[in-house]
Amino acid sequence: MTVKTHSFKIDTNKNFEIIDITSEVNGLIDIEEGIVSIFSRHSTSAIVVNENESGLLKDFEFMLANLITDEFSYQHDRIDNNAKSHLKSFLLSSSECLPVKNGKLDLGTWQSLFFVELDGPRRNRTVTLTMVGE
Amino acid sequence: MTVKTHSFKIDTNKNFEIIDITSEVNGLIDIEEGIVSIFSRHSTSAIVVNENESGLLKDFEFMLANLITDEFSYQHDRIDNNAKSHLKSFLLSSSECLPVKNGKLDLGTWQSLFFVELDGPRRNRTVTLTMVGE
Amino acid sequence: MTVKTHSFKIDTNKNFEIIDITSEVNGLIDIEEGIVSIFSRHSTSAIVVNENESGLLKDFEFMLANLITDEFSYQHDRIDNNAKSHLKSFLLSSSECLPVKNGKLDLGTWQSLFFVELDGPRRNRTVTLTMVGE
Repeated sequence: MTVKTHSFKIDTNKNFEIIDITSEVNGLIDIEEGIVSIFSRHSTSAIVVNENESGLLKDFEFMLANLITDEFSYQHDRIDNNAKSHLKSFLLSSSECLPVKNGKLDLGTWQSLFFVELDGPRRNRTVTLTMVGE
Repeated sequence: MTVKTHSFKIDTNKNFEIIDITSEVNGLIDIEEGIVSIFSRHSTSAIVVNENESGLLKDFEFMLANLITDEFSYQHDRIDNNAKSHLKSFLLSSSECLPVKNGKLDLGTWQSLFFVELDGPRRNRTVTLTMVGE
Repeated sequence: MTVKTHSFKIDTNKNFEIIDITSEVNGLIDIEEGIVSIFSRHSTSAIVVNENESGLLKDFEFMLANLITDEFSYQHDRIDNNAKSHLKSFLLSSSECLPVKNGKLDLGTWQSLFFVELDGPRRNRTVTLTMVGE
């Protein structure tokens, strides 16, 4: 049994951007079997698992914009004009904790792991991986 | 310290169905104390924890239908007519990572663990359990 | 490698209350590196990670009230008049599983860990910590 940690950086190019990080995370996993925490160190981003289909990812952006709308005035915008980005992050969560098998994420056929930028563009978004297993 | 993995299958009978899997998961736990990841290998399903009260489960279905409505046209529906199912899964998440104590899920009195079918009926939905502990 | 568990109690004073538990959790962590599950044993509460800015926390309360509105009649309210509290908990989740480094939560600069009371005031809300690491 062992603990291993890694981190990697992401530069984003748009205000909303959803980036498939499955391959990058698989390349950093160095246990054979166990659990890995994938954690974004930012409160205007999220980590999610779903299908990588371009139309669906557009629907996801639309859904979030529909749930957290422009029609209200948010208090946090007086300090930093990104309340909606934080609120989307609250709803989605900044981490996932996933199974590892045979040295990689044990996902289903139609599942990918995504980093969701909710307040870009940004440089040096950091994702940490913490693995426990053998 | 050890890692143990198990999986089990679920057949669902309705488009939306919420199934209490607390007993099934407890029956498969074979560590005494630690953490268990409960992961659904499907991007139109979810794993959640809450109270098993039949009226509340109806309210939960209603809430999701109200948040992800029929009033929009979704791009993913051109490929596979289940965008709303994926979007509900995005919001809820496909996994939970929970404490284990005395060889079972260490839940509160009013908590159960549920598999949520968002695009049924389906055969052979697979849930994997990955335990780390002793 | 080891497993450690702790729990602590929270008394809440309002119907909706968001309480920063970062320091309390850090004080109870007794591994150097690994993963910690932070789990609320109640189905009308939540555990979330985001920025501790007072205006943002008001926005968060407003967002939840806007998503889970008073305009509907909920079935669970015939049994226990707190359906909306449960539904908010369903959306947010009752736990987080986070990285530990150097003996404390490995959060980003603008991140705090919160217990969210959704049906207060209540006495003796219990949060359990389960750590796996070394």
